[in-house]
Amino acid sequence: MRLEWNRHGKSGIRLVKVRQPDDGSGPHDVIDLTIDVQLEGAFTPVYEDGDNAGCLATDTMKNTVYAFARHDPLHHVESFLLRLAEHFAERPLVERVRLAATEQRWERLSAGGRPHPHAFVQPGGEQWTALVVRERPGLVSVEAGVTNLVLLKTTDSSFAGFPRDELTTLPETDDRLLATSLTASWRYRPEAADFSVRGAIRTALAETFAEHVSRSVQHTLYAMGRSALLACDAIAEITLAMPNRHHLPVDLGPFGLDNPNVVFVAIDRPFGLIEATVRR
Amino acid sequence: MRLEWNRHGKSGIRLVKVRQPDDGSGPHDVIDLTIDVQLEGAFTPVYEDGDNAGCLATDTMKNTVYAFARHDPLHHVESFLLRLAEHFAERPLVERVRLAATEQRWERLSAGGRPHPHAFVQPGGEQWTALVVRERPGLVSVEAGVTNLVLLKTTDSSFAGFPRDELTTLPETDDRLLATSLTASWRYRPEAADFSVRGAIRTALAETFAEHVSRSVQHTLYAMGRSALLACDAIAEITLAMPNRHHLPVDLGPFGLDNPNVVFVAIDRPFGLIEATVRR
Amino acid sequence: MRLEWNRHGKSGIRLVKVRQPDDGSGPHDVIDLTIDVQLEGAFTPVYEDGDNAGCLATDTMKNTVYAFARHDPLHHVESFLLRLAEHFAERPLVERVRLAATEQRWERLSAGGRPHPHAFVQPGGEQWTALVVRERPGLVSVEAGVTNLVLLKTTDSSFAGFPRDELTTLPETDDRLLATSLTASWRYRPEAADFSVRGAIRTALAETFAEHVSRSVQHTLYAMGRSALLACDAIAEITLAMPNRHHLPVDLGPFGLDNPNVVFVAIDRPFGLIEATVRR
Amino acid sequence: MRLEWNRHGKSGIRLVKVRQPDDGSGPHDVIDLTIDVQLEGAFTPVYEDGDNAGCLATDTMKNTVYAFARHDPLHHVESFLLRLAEHFAERPLVERVRLAATEQRWERLSAGGRPHPHAFVQPGGEQWTALVVRERPGLVSVEAGVTNLVLLKTTDSSFAGFPRDELTTLPETDDRLLATSLTASWRYRPEAADFSVRGAIRTALAETFAEHVSRSVQHTLYAMGRSALLACDAIAEITLAMPNRHHLPVDLGPFGLDNPNVVFVAIDRPFGLIEATVRR
Repeated sequence: MRLEWNRHGKSGIRLVKVRQPDDGSGPHDVIDLTIDVQLEGAFTPVYEDGDNAGCLATDTMKNTVYAFARHDPLHHVESFLLRLAEHFAERPLVERVRLAATEQRWERLSAGGRPHPHAFVQPGGEQWTALVVRERPGLVSVEAGVTNLVLLKTTDSSFAGFPRDELTTLPETDDRLLATSLTASWRYRPEAADFSVRGAIRTALAETFAEHVSRSVQHTLYAMGRSALLACDAIAEITLAMPNRHHLPVDLGPFGLDNPNVVFVAIDRPFGLIEATVRR
Repeated sequence: MRLEWNRHGKSGIRLVKVRQPDDGSGPHDVIDLTIDVQLEGAFTPVYEDGDNAGCLATDTMKNTVYAFARHDPLHHVESFLLRLAEHFAERPLVERVRLAATEQRWERLSAGGRPHPHAFVQPGGEQWTALVVRERPGLVSVEAGVTNLVLLKTTDSSFAGFPRDELTTLPETDDRLLATSLTASWRYRPEAADFSVRGAIRTALAETFAEHVSRSVQHTLYAMGRSALLACDAIAEITLAMPNRHHLPVDLGPFGLDNPNVVFVAIDRPFGLIEATVRR
Repeated sequence: MRLEWNRHGKSGIRLVKVRQPDDGSGPHDVIDLTIDVQLEGAFTPVYEDGDNAGCLATDTMKNTVYAFARHDPLHHVESFLLRLAEHFAERPLVERVRLAATEQRWERLSAGGRPHPHAFVQPGGEQWTALVVRERPGLVSVEAGVTNLVLLKTTDSSFAGFPRDELTTLPETDDRLLATSLTASWRYRPEAADFSVRGAIRTALAETFAEHVSRSVQHTLYAMGRSALLACDAIAEITLAMPNRHHLPVDLGPFGLDNPNVVFVAIDRPFGLIEATVRR
Repeated sequence: MRLEWNRHGKSGIRLVKVRQPDDGSGPHDVIDLTIDVQLEGAFTPVYEDGDNAGCLATDTMKNTVYAFARHDPLHHVESFLLRLAEHFAERPLVERVRLAATEQRWERLSAGGRPHPHAFVQPGGEQWTALVVRERPGLVSVEAGVTNLVLLKTTDSSFAGFPRDELTTLPETDDRLLATSLTASWRYRPEAADFSVRGAIRTALAETFAEHVSRSVQHTLYAMGRSALLACDAIAEITLAMPNRHHLPVDLGPFGLDNPNVVFVAIDRPFGLIEATVRR
């Protein structure tokens, strides 16, 4: 028996890069990639003999992607992958490098009629909801909403001043990336008959997310709910659920690189979940 | 022991309505809903005694949604649910009606710089892909693509003239709704260095989908691939995979209603899957 | 430009076969497959010219799978696919046939210590749940449950005698396949301190599902809830949610075949959803 | 306007605990939980004023779960949640605590006819696959396999001796938890007609996973492939894909606790992916 073919690599490397002018002025861009690295080569002793002397750790492949992303302009993903491929091809025993990337698009939000410099929406996934509950004649509740409206801002968000106990390790931050997948549902006043307000409410929610200087998800959630109520008389209350889609800055220090909120890893689980109802 | 609370209903009713002017002129609209019907009431004998005399079949709930959708303008989902709620509230034993809808948005495609009258794209879900395979110096393949680009046209699509054997039951049709979730991947010429063509290729694919008079998914796929190659010299070949996201006209005949391609059910599985590579 | 490669087929064909002795005695078996058919061949005119004369409809592929399943013993999926491959290989223009199947296993349920002749559980997917809500000292609610416990019985289930209105088309049936994905959650009595009852409750639920002669999902749900309360004094009430995972007998009449509850298609959406709470 | 209701918490906390006798002898147990923490209370200033003085960080909730898991016997999840609830109820401003857990079951593997002390299989999710490709008469390939067979061992796995470059940060380990979701596919010899070997191959794969003293995923993969070929003459080769489902020991040092491979966090992405074909 023999090893006929082998391949090893790291899959599902989540890389979110915030691209910004070197002098800190000007608008930000967001590039959101999920990358798979796969290497083939003369790795038979790793398999047959348990000899790891030639086994490039998949953890190192992940580190490589983040380190290269620090200074790569990432104007085209293809070019980024080509640079990575050259690097991996030079590792010992490697004979074939396969790099795949999937890019999730982010669109710039508008606020006040102008493109916002650092707030974004992930197009798609957003769905509209409606709910009618009829108890008896004259007692009918109508709710409507949006779900999975994915929003992100690259700055104007902090989280500090929270209580610390013996189980608290989270550092304070005065500048973080904030992302959420918003679910909002508003209840119409009993007499409401005009159900055309969805667009106005959605605009109020998204613009407030973009422009609010956030001290916490809770703080921004309340501002968004308040804006929605101000934007539309027909609704009596609004409930918002905002999972905190954590994006953590990658520690590039071991590679001699700084990371001034440029290279992030997006975390699926666990996630903070903030929910509240705002009423007139 | 006793039945403390009960609810029964139909969930996941897929309703796609094509709204068009009565005289057949003018542009189409697409409304895409997934509806849950839930009824509470005095149904204890159904549970405790197996007595179905008062048990509204969930299949009938589904029929009701489709029948009501035939002539409802569906300008606001909330109003549609209110009408359905009145109907269900009048069924025997019903005490509480809960109707929930999730709406998937479709945006009108543009073609030739103008909004297309009957072709649509489902915003979101679309992702961009890239793939680099490096075999050795000088032998590097670069591919890029889009995946999950969901397209739909409400007319200009037929499927007829196919062979019939003893296992064929599909009727021929000269006018059907056509929807797909496109995955396209193009291979750059070896010397290509400009990776900025994605937008142009995507436009060529989407516009051809919109404007092609389709005799089959295969027929449209080839036209789309050809357009992409014409639009962009940098690519050598393109591979397309187009699942046929079947939308079947609902048979409203049992309810005394016609259905001239107005009310559809969207089917998840099975699905046709058409794949091909077009090369210069 | 030219068509370099092509493939078309049907994916996601859901086939559930109930295998039973010819004389109707003896235990049933369930085989649950999802099949993909893919054909390659000389189909260029379909793509380039819109000429469907040689285009085997993917709908016919689906019909073929169901018709072949009627009398195939399905002892080994590999053999079934080989027979199908021979058939498709003989269709005009076909040069290569690729058939893939994924099989979902079903295990026979036990009841009263013996294997049940026609009730099954889908191993896996089942998860255990727990929920603690603490309002204030002394006011703490403890619930526990199981979710996604997938059960199926091939007979001893009917649905008839339900009211018919002008929107009712469902025929009555005195013998149908019944399947569900059970979610159950029980609330402990306030003073309960023994949380080891999960196994006993799960057994009561599954055995009652197997042995109950069902007139409706509601009817069986109530019997299951009652059994759980009888099996365990520590719980005060139980809530069950039972989606009706519809399995419809395939109409094989057009192919000259009968179908005495042997060949089914499993439907994902829509689904009936029956929920209730049973309390002491 | 006012804040009518609020709730904040951490969702999707992945906790895998390995329970073992204090003296290190005897078999291990695995408890695999996903926990949601939700707190309600007098948190209005957090929302309305951006005042975080009373805002318990959701990151601290996560830490609390891991710290409590270190010494909790976890015999019943309900009891663990009750202890956590008491702790959270004593935090400032908290008025209501809601704790939900979902438990994924692991079953002990057998090897050599006896229960294995530290190797487990996650029941369910496992599916069986088959693939027939017919090129022309006499040229037919038959493959079969299993997919999503989820295996875990709590010890007898190391990863050390791999090369270190400037991008390597992974520490060496001589004792780690190893988990995978196996996909295996074997190709039958051309003349094979007996397709009943699946059980024997599955047993060989699972037993070898359990008993192999692993120096890497690659090392164990090869041993498993070799065992499968030895167990069954009818197959010519086998291809295995083994994603490394990383389970990382939680750093409990900040809370004054050790963690001798007892409390783990399960990571979804990224994951190592090891693939190979073993042939006679």
